[in-house]
Amino acid sequence: MSQEIPYKIYLSEAEIPKAWYNMRADMKEKPAPLLNPGTLKPMTKEELSVVFCEELVDQELDNDNAYIPIPEEIRNFYKMYRPAPLIRAYCLEEKLKTPAKIYYKFEGNNTSGSHKLNSAIAQAYYAKKQGLKGVTTETGAGQWGTALSMACAYLGLDCKVYMVKVSYEQKPFRREVMRTYGASVTPSPSDTTQIGRKILSEFPGTTGSLGCAISEAVEVAVNTPGYRYVLGSVLNQVLLHQSVIGLETKAALDKYGVKADIVIGCAGGGSNLGGLIAPFMGEKLRGEADYRIIAVEPQSCPSFTRGRYAYDFCDTGMVCPLAKMYTLGSSFIPAPNHAGGLRYHGMSSTLSKLYDDKMMEAVSVKQTDVFRAAEMFARVEGILPAPESSHAIKVAVDEALKCKETGEAKTIVFGLTGTGYFDMVAYEKFHDNKMTDYIPTDEELEASLSKLPKV
Amino acid sequence: MSQEIPYKIYLSEAEIPKAWYNMRADMKEKPAPLLNPGTLKPMTKEELSVVFCEELVDQELDNDNAYIPIPEEIRNFYKMYRPAPLIRAYCLEEKLKTPAKIYYKFEGNNTSGSHKLNSAIAQAYYAKKQGLKGVTTETGAGQWGTALSMACAYLGLDCKVYMVKVSYEQKPFRREVMRTYGASVTPSPSDTTQIGRKILSEFPGTTGSLGCAISEAVEVAVNTPGYRYVLGSVLNQVLLHQSVIGLETKAALDKYGVKADIVIGCAGGGSNLGGLIAPFMGEKLRGEADYRIIAVEPQSCPSFTRGRYAYDFCDTGMVCPLAKMYTLGSSFIPAPNHAGGLRYHGMSSTLSKLYDDKMMEAVSVKQTDVFRAAEMFARVEGILPAPESSHAIKVAVDEALKCKETGEAKTIVFGLTGTGYFDMVAYEKFHDNKMTDYIPTDEELEASLSKLPKV
Repeated sequence: MSQEIPYKIYLSEAEIPKAWYNMRADMKEKPAPLLNPGTLKPMTKEELSVVFCEELVDQELDNDNAYIPIPEEIRNFYKMYRPAPLIRAYCLEEKLKTPAKIYYKFEGNNTSGSHKLNSAIAQAYYAKKQGLKGVTTETGAGQWGTALSMACAYLGLDCKVYMVKVSYEQKPFRREVMRTYGASVTPSPSDTTQIGRKILSEFPGTTGSLGCAISEAVEVAVNTPGYRYVLGSVLNQVLLHQSVIGLETKAALDKYGVKADIVIGCAGGGSNLGGLIAPFMGEKLRGEADYRIIAVEPQSCPSFTRGRYAYDFCDTGMVCPLAKMYTLGSSFIPAPNHAGGLRYHGMSSTLSKLYDDKMMEAVSVKQTDVFRAAEMFARVEGILPAPESSHAIKVAVDEALKCKETGEAKTIVFGLTGTGYFDMVAYEKFHDNKMTDYIPTDEELEASLSKLPKV
Repeated sequence: MSQEIPYKIYLSEAEIPKAWYNMRADMKEKPAPLLNPGTLKPMTKEELSVVFCEELVDQELDNDNAYIPIPEEIRNFYKMYRPAPLIRAYCLEEKLKTPAKIYYKFEGNNTSGSHKLNSAIAQAYYAKKQGLKGVTTETGAGQWGTALSMACAYLGLDCKVYMVKVSYEQKPFRREVMRTYGASVTPSPSDTTQIGRKILSEFPGTTGSLGCAISEAVEVAVNTPGYRYVLGSVLNQVLLHQSVIGLETKAALDKYGVKADIVIGCAGGGSNLGGLIAPFMGEKLRGEADYRIIAVEPQSCPSFTRGRYAYDFCDTGMVCPLAKMYTLGSSFIPAPNHAGGLRYHGMSSTLSKLYDDKMMEAVSVKQTDVFRAAEMFARVEGILPAPESSHAIKVAVDEALKCKETGEAKTIVFGLTGTGYFDMVAYEKFHDNKMTDYIPTDEELEASLSKLPKV
């Protein structure tokens, strides 16, 4: 306990978790099931298997097993970039002059630049194991698409990525990274799918959306023999794979006898947050320990803090199952000035249930405040954070400053999900004072919420 | 010895070297001294101190001390991103089906994206210690400028970067990273200096060169009270600081009882190569061990393999001291199709002397071969390499394939200096089959070599 804590706590490769942790097993009330959009009945394994790989469907539906072994092959891939360091933010603490002890789990030390790789390799592995030829997916800014391309290149799987058109055009570098890993990248909406052609004819000149790219990727997966669809967030299986983040974090803290008081993660669809908090939430669900757990979302896309807990479509084309989640409505699209990621309209149904059960808090933050925190963090800690990750930085700083006022030496742990190397256009806007904030009005939210399906 | 070697060998923070190693101390014949361009006499400490910080001048001139202690403050900064991992390229070995054992020292896990930070923090530290207000420098693609900006932000020093105009315009993202760290970035040539105005009037529309940016940065440093100039490569002091790369590499190998047979590094000005090979060359100089040491340079800028060993100007404006080095002539500028970095016209005088003494080999490689090796490496090892670093990958692969032919299980160690996230325009050209190779003709080289100063 009295050991000096290093700047970076690295576990050994042998200490990479051998099983993922499934929070649902410890939840008394389970998250609401996915519904078939036609029958409004819970999706069966058979129905889901048309879209997803079989073992992943099992994981998606598994509310009982707390631990699911990580196959040897996936652990070997993890060894290429994991364990990820848990970093003690000594320099940030000094800058803030706070008695708080701040730690962050850094998931950016791999080429995808984020935590997305943790689930990408798992999903690609099960696809390969099932004997598939390839997978399809969508990507917005491109972190997920990059991660999946890397995993597929490693396993020799074909990878078809539908990339939101505005990102495809404005973020050509991400596109090239995916091509480096052998993926085919198609701007969405495209004329390669029925739904794409429909959207193009109804909205000529549209620059696309995540929901629309999902519809295209799913359509291709279900119509191409030997292909399935994979998704980088929102789903239970993704949170399961991402639990490796939290398990390593907890193991590193335990190694030095450190107990977290507050755990903070940014939240879009919930993949990082669900992974980071998993073992902490597990202890909380089992009544073994208490933690403050805080989800941070952008004010411009506030699904937890201003959305409705209801069944909604996961995609624009309404081809996907319905999920019960905190949602802004599947037709909600964040204002164009929003540059900080985390732009999905809904939130993981597991996290939504936990939030509804008051097991965690949520706050929303302004994007200029997020970039201000990001720049300060970069200067003292060295790492250039992704805008997404910087939402967590902002709230970690706020909590540390509260400690300064009260004199409490709380232990704050946050997730630094990735790096911002491909977000320099947004940083440039910030430097040039051209970045603005946007808070949707109640009327705007009502417009998309009023279109929620009647379930 | 029979321990299984992990994918990534991490030393502990306590094992970060406590002293840099100075190869010159073990060289029987020392590298030729810098000359005053006016008097053609060796530069004195007093003369150099007008341009450089005092302790750095001491290091520059020190041919005697083998070990120079690393100040505590610099070691603390190193802890933010060091020790860097030495990675066993298991996946690459498998891909090549070679009996060779391949290791690479990865220096890209920091926001500057390269090894440049190792010397940037040292130079900024000594500037701060001397009570200076700030430093000036030049940057091409921007890795050095980014590294220096990070170091200056950490220490609260002002940082003025002259960035080659073509990079300033074509690589706005690097510029924004530097601005994130609070640096001022000026496209060079500029109207902020005498030499810049002169070049602009003589060559209107020029897109600049490294040599020109150096001249501007030096002019500002010597004419602004409280400022000095710092440089990211070529100089003895830089190689000294970069020896931390080689020292960690050797310590990691020693930990597992592994003896390198071949050590390979890319070479532009020599900062990475000189740092990586330092302790290996030391043993070789002292007759304690033998290693094949290979410098890899681009065929389009082949200073070792086709240059002349002679005194030359370090900058276009001819305001800097003369250095004896393998050079293509200070007026040499690589062809515009050259996208792979390593574009400086000369080579570190220490490395030049060692090469002239046949203590190391040099090879030059075609850029399309370099990108082919880079892409293959990315797909199997996960890391997206910088084009510079990929020169070393190319030759490491070649050597591993030779082992496959001969059946020898040699141990190959190479330096992976950084990541290619800001080089996607070049990767795009490669993917689209628009990348070409260029080998300067003898006549072209003669044109710049004929302008070497008469010393």
